[in-house]
Amino acid sequence: MQQLHSVIGQSVRRADGFDKVTGKALFAADMCMDGMLYGKALRSTVPHGVLEALDLEAARAMPGVHAVLTAADIPGANSHGIIMKDEPVCVPIGGRVRRVGDPLALVAADTEAIAAEAVRSIRVSIRELQPVFDMFEAIKPETPRLYDHPNALNRHIEKGNVDAAFAVADLCVEGHYRTQRVEHGYIEPEAALAYCDGNIVHVHVATQNPHFDAKEVARNLGIGMHKVHVVQMTTGGGFGGKLDMSLSVPTALLACASNRPVKIVWSRTESLLFSVKRHPYVVDIKHAVKADGTILAVQCAIYGDTGAYASFGPGVLTRAAVHCTGPYNIPNVWTDAYTVFTNNPTSGAMRGFGVPQMSFVVESQMDCIAEKLGLSPYALRYKNALRPGDAISTGSVLRQSVGIVKTLEAVRAKAREVFHLDVAAPHKREQTNGKRRGFGCGCMMYGCGNTGLPNPSGAFVDILDDGTVRVLTGCAEIGQGSSTVLGQIAAQEIGVPFEDVLVLAGDTSQSPDAGASSASRQTYISGNAVQRAAREAKTNIYTMAAEMLGVPVDALVGENGVIRAQPQASAQLSDCQKTCQGSLGLTPVPAPNPQGTSVTFKEAVAKCRAKGIMSIGSGWFNPPTTSLDPVTGQGDPYGCYSFAAQLAEVEVDTETGEVRLLQVVAAHDVGKSVNPMLCEGQIQGGTIMGMGYTLLEEALCEKGTIRTDSLNTYLMATSMDVPVIHPIIVEDNEKTGPFGAKGIGEPALIPTSAAVANAIFDAVGVRVRSLPITPEKMLTLLKEVQTSNK
Amino acid sequence: MQQLHSVIGQSVRRADGFDKVTGKALFAADMCMDGMLYGKALRSTVPHGVLEALDLEAARAMPGVHAVLTAADIPGANSHGIIMKDEPVCVPIGGRVRRVGDPLALVAADTEAIAAEAVRSIRVSIRELQPVFDMFEAIKPETPRLYDHPNALNRHIEKGNVDAAFAVADLCVEGHYRTQRVEHGYIEPEAALAYCDGNIVHVHVATQNPHFDAKEVARNLGIGMHKVHVVQMTTGGGFGGKLDMSLSVPTALLACASNRPVKIVWSRTESLLFSVKRHPYVVDIKHAVKADGTILAVQCAIYGDTGAYASFGPGVLTRAAVHCTGPYNIPNVWTDAYTVFTNNPTSGAMRGFGVPQMSFVVESQMDCIAEKLGLSPYALRYKNALRPGDAISTGSVLRQSVGIVKTLEAVRAKAREVFHLDVAAPHKREQTNGKRRGFGCGCMMYGCGNTGLPNPSGAFVDILDDGTVRVLTGCAEIGQGSSTVLGQIAAQEIGVPFEDVLVLAGDTSQSPDAGASSASRQTYISGNAVQRAAREAKTNIYTMAAEMLGVPVDALVGENGVIRAQPQASAQLSDCQKTCQGSLGLTPVPAPNPQGTSVTFKEAVAKCRAKGIMSIGSGWFNPPTTSLDPVTGQGDPYGCYSFAAQLAEVEVDTETGEVRLLQVVAAHDVGKSVNPMLCEGQIQGGTIMGMGYTLLEEALCEKGTIRTDSLNTYLMATSMDVPVIHPIIVEDNEKTGPFGAKGIGEPALIPTSAAVANAIFDAVGVRVRSLPITPEKMLTLLKEVQTSNK
Repeated sequence: MQQLHSVIGQSVRRADGFDKVTGKALFAADMCMDGMLYGKALRSTVPHGVLEALDLEAARAMPGVHAVLTAADIPGANSHGIIMKDEPVCVPIGGRVRRVGDPLALVAADTEAIAAEAVRSIRVSIRELQPVFDMFEAIKPETPRLYDHPNALNRHIEKGNVDAAFAVADLCVEGHYRTQRVEHGYIEPEAALAYCDGNIVHVHVATQNPHFDAKEVARNLGIGMHKVHVVQMTTGGGFGGKLDMSLSVPTALLACASNRPVKIVWSRTESLLFSVKRHPYVVDIKHAVKADGTILAVQCAIYGDTGAYASFGPGVLTRAAVHCTGPYNIPNVWTDAYTVFTNNPTSGAMRGFGVPQMSFVVESQMDCIAEKLGLSPYALRYKNALRPGDAISTGSVLRQSVGIVKTLEAVRAKAREVFHLDVAAPHKREQTNGKRRGFGCGCMMYGCGNTGLPNPSGAFVDILDDGTVRVLTGCAEIGQGSSTVLGQIAAQEIGVPFEDVLVLAGDTSQSPDAGASSASRQTYISGNAVQRAAREAKTNIYTMAAEMLGVPVDALVGENGVIRAQPQASAQLSDCQKTCQGSLGLTPVPAPNPQGTSVTFKEAVAKCRAKGIMSIGSGWFNPPTTSLDPVTGQGDPYGCYSFAAQLAEVEVDTETGEVRLLQVVAAHDVGKSVNPMLCEGQIQGGTIMGMGYTLLEEALCEKGTIRTDSLNTYLMATSMDVPVIHPIIVEDNEKTGPFGAKGIGEPALIPTSAAVANAIFDAVGVRVRSLPITPEKMLTLLKEVQTSNK
Repeated sequence: MQQLHSVIGQSVRRADGFDKVTGKALFAADMCMDGMLYGKALRSTVPHGVLEALDLEAARAMPGVHAVLTAADIPGANSHGIIMKDEPVCVPIGGRVRRVGDPLALVAADTEAIAAEAVRSIRVSIRELQPVFDMFEAIKPETPRLYDHPNALNRHIEKGNVDAAFAVADLCVEGHYRTQRVEHGYIEPEAALAYCDGNIVHVHVATQNPHFDAKEVARNLGIGMHKVHVVQMTTGGGFGGKLDMSLSVPTALLACASNRPVKIVWSRTESLLFSVKRHPYVVDIKHAVKADGTILAVQCAIYGDTGAYASFGPGVLTRAAVHCTGPYNIPNVWTDAYTVFTNNPTSGAMRGFGVPQMSFVVESQMDCIAEKLGLSPYALRYKNALRPGDAISTGSVLRQSVGIVKTLEAVRAKAREVFHLDVAAPHKREQTNGKRRGFGCGCMMYGCGNTGLPNPSGAFVDILDDGTVRVLTGCAEIGQGSSTVLGQIAAQEIGVPFEDVLVLAGDTSQSPDAGASSASRQTYISGNAVQRAAREAKTNIYTMAAEMLGVPVDALVGENGVIRAQPQASAQLSDCQKTCQGSLGLTPVPAPNPQGTSVTFKEAVAKCRAKGIMSIGSGWFNPPTTSLDPVTGQGDPYGCYSFAAQLAEVEVDTETGEVRLLQVVAAHDVGKSVNPMLCEGQIQGGTIMGMGYTLLEEALCEKGTIRTDSLNTYLMATSMDVPVIHPIIVEDNEKTGPFGAKGIGEPALIPTSAAVANAIFDAVGVRVRSLPITPEKMLTLLKEVQTSNK
């Protein structure tokens, strides 16, 4: 039988590519409407205090000003936030200011300049309170609480008996690590435009989760969700930063108050100052190890500074706790992960969601352990790597698709080819000049989807009369390629060419909720939802095709626009048919089917249509998870897990302290690569972002104020810094995933920092336990090493 | 148990009312876009010929002209039409011009004036052919054919033995009738705007069938339907005129050719000249009757002038043939209904779809028969009225919801109350002055949906996290109230207040095909589709509520936001549960349920959401019809039938010939009135439209050209002409309809003309057998009667 073309695994051109490359794609900031106003917020310059008064008279009297809103003018909840609704849209009079940047009032005016002038004209009275900027200060019992709850919320996980394990261990390796606050640095700063049309509020916005934005708008306007229409515009990156800090709520409030379209576009400085950041961590960790390298236990305390508001903080720290073992089988675990509230800028979701920090910690520890045992870092990892049947920290047993061993093997093979190096053999480079090179390994495990929480996705599929297909999904395409991947999944499931599928995404009026484009969940979860909707939509067409071909419907295979009966089809009857025959004594109906009998998909659709039979479907999927036990943290937090191993080659200039990342071999287990080009793109982009995280980036904060308020002071990697990346796609099929697929978006970034840190150690013998690894830090550490060597 | 509020049967305020009343509603003509061009067509002034050449040089060179398209520039099919694709978008060189107004070229320019000038600058060479304007000339064998097929297409229906019936009849009543060509006269003339965005073509248009428009655009652009996005804008009436003559295709072609947004808005004159019209009929009919009033047979020949193109012609004439019995049980039928092609303007769909003409004929005949037998017209109708178990002309047996008897009884009762008149008793008024009054009855049957054709509708329903609901339907709201009615059906099915439902309609990107807003089908067919989708969407919520209440799910009743367990629920188990118990020996799980236990709908939704359970659904419905036998016309053409009886009171001025319609009692069987206010609105509007059809309107046509090219010459009823209307809603529940509902849109218009004509006879003894009944015609007929009386 002729091999049919499969859409899954093909690097089809991304659906949004043409519009983005030609500049046709419309971003929220591009939008203009007649009578449109510009919105601005008055923000606190004080990190902690009580708002006592606002004098709005001048602002309200200013010509060109159409709306000046305070908390009192907000008809609904006046709150937002993902995990807790703790963040006011506007701080009310008498309410608490908890950070620099807290909004106090909203203004809409004819021009941005007038809006800014109106904001400046508002006199603010804040009674200042003692702020707390240090996590360890914040968690002291005597420090005043920022909320009713304690300043630190703990996620505790315990499995096995850690004390017993440490008692019998041959080796205990401890470490103290710190990671920094960083910025997402998406190309497009935040932007939104809102207007009211009849009794519907429309919001066009850069967002990672349009349905969540719709909920927040509805809550704050005090109206039903059906009256809110959010359109996710072309979004120039998200990385977690466009989840909670969306501008949907203030623009919608101003639009309703002024009865005019209102647009808010943040400058890069506003984005750097007021968007959420990656949590800075302080981690104390120790591993109990046997002499043969078997890791017996891990114990750690993780402190994450979530700043003034929870945002995703408790979720980030929970994920950190769950991932404290890395991709290793460690039977005894004791973890406390503290979400610490301070008067710093809010930390929220960012690509990796608490795991990049832990990967830096855990994978640095692995190399420390290997060194102490005289094992190669590779061998230690290989020995302890998770295998099917093993359990993660939460006791959840991994049944299948556990690709860490495969990724390690793939890295080893590639390293032989590229570097002529066997990473399984211990080695130490000796170099004479001031620039030394080294290799380092970093691995990771990443649970796809929200941790132990329901996070379903739904989709509609409509097969049109000419056999082309519309997929309606709430899944925000933020550049990751979801619309392409979901289109491929629908095309494969239905059996049509990719070109015949159009994915319409991110419009709350046309599709069910797909949840956030975060947690590397959309390929897995929305992919399943789309597949289910597609399966329902195609049913009648395949039933018709079966009738046309005289075969049972489950003997049909559809691909690339052709529905084909398998050669032996006439002998095969569906279970249902068998049952019917069994119970009713009927003779099989299918006619003999010569090899290769087929109808085109369009023929079967046309025949359905001629009989008035429609082909539409809805489908949803929620991963089979359980919530974590509040005491022990045990449970099944994820539907599936992605794995990766990376090998970095660095060059350290011992005179300047500069570290250059030269090459990275990056092997990622994605279950099944729906679109290899997009997978490789994620690996490349993630690795570069990981490099920036490791070597360059830090959002410096003093007294609650971000000081790196432009891209001159906030250093991000440029194209000049990009290393040679060797992406390797490993496919350990995930049975619960659509065609075996699982997530790749965040995993791509996670292993890089430890790989770089370990390579630095390999090159110059310096163990760096904090990020970023700046030249200054390297020089200091190099000096320390030289001193101790003397 | 407390009576819960039901949404069905409530006159909720129409969903589109506020925006229309306040002027907020956006029509296609209101739209403007940056760089927008204006489109115009060059049209033939010749009714019949061969297009030999077009000199486009001047037009193409004209500053401000951005596209000049001819047939050669159309990438796709260059054809449109509903039943036959016989109408060119542009007549090709060498192709046939068949009517005045055939488009020859399309122009897009910066302004309407430039576009018009460019059109005027095109030199046209047409070799003229002999046109044919008369139906009976057209059907002569020697007349050249307009197409490969004969100039008349016949729909033949035969049932029983007509010859035998006439042989045994006591009375044969013959009649020759004529009806005129009329205009729909919607408030809003045709308008569309199209633009291309990436590889998607967007069309915003006034239409009755956005999904059909999308198909036609795709065919003519030669692209997949998934690449065409049609948005039905607020549409100012349709009445059948915005089905095939939509401007979607030319605007889309010009937009793609110019790569600019293009708008075409027809003037009233263009609309009057080039839109389709109601078919003018000539009907020869005879009835065989027994002395007791039993009608034995009807035989008729119907000729309908469809003009140059088929449009809906064969469908209109088929429906006319099927409805030739009226709402009466006539065992023997012989009908030939000819769709006649001429070089006249195209006739297409118009409210009633061929039945208003037949109703005028059949109901006039009924009065003639009654007069000859000395029966009251009411008694004759009552005696012969269809009852359950009777068959219509196609042999289709009516099982239920046959409300003609009930509507007759309702009219009789109301006439007693309003006029102190027993319509069942024969009467003849004598009046002395020049103004004489009379009463006349008209009845009708109308099959809901397309005749013997598949005409499915699909819908999506999305129940949001706060328990509000979005209904996605392709059903075009053209003023008939479908979005309100479909919202009520969804609200009732799901059990939420109407206010919690938003219906999004007529956007091909967000909903499945719902077919046309025509044939009085949307309440019945799309209503069923929405109900099915709603049922699927609510399933998980009710399952959750059953779990919360500890009762079987089928013991639940949900209305107005409350899900209530019936008091005896704990004793009731679903069939499934019973089966399980039977086979597995399980004990019933439901806990005892005290009276009135309930949860709110929102509570059940929230609980689903907390578990990651989504509530979405898709549904579609196609009425259970069969195609008509091509030889005998026998079959089941409709899923259900609406019925009506109207009684008109007129005043005839015997000196001026003027007829005034004073009052109408209009009883309509709608199965179940979802929204009585909207039903009454349809009855009032339909009756007024029927009055205009009867007394005022005629699109005069000379040599293929419409002469009544403005509302000065084309007379429509104004508010000054409106009679007192007494709408009566009769509800003979239709089991296959959503909550028992069937159609009302067209039936409202159908009985009026015969009622008026019969009332005129009652008043002055003049039998008018042609429409419209103008004062001139009346004076002539009055003179004839006076002459014959002398």
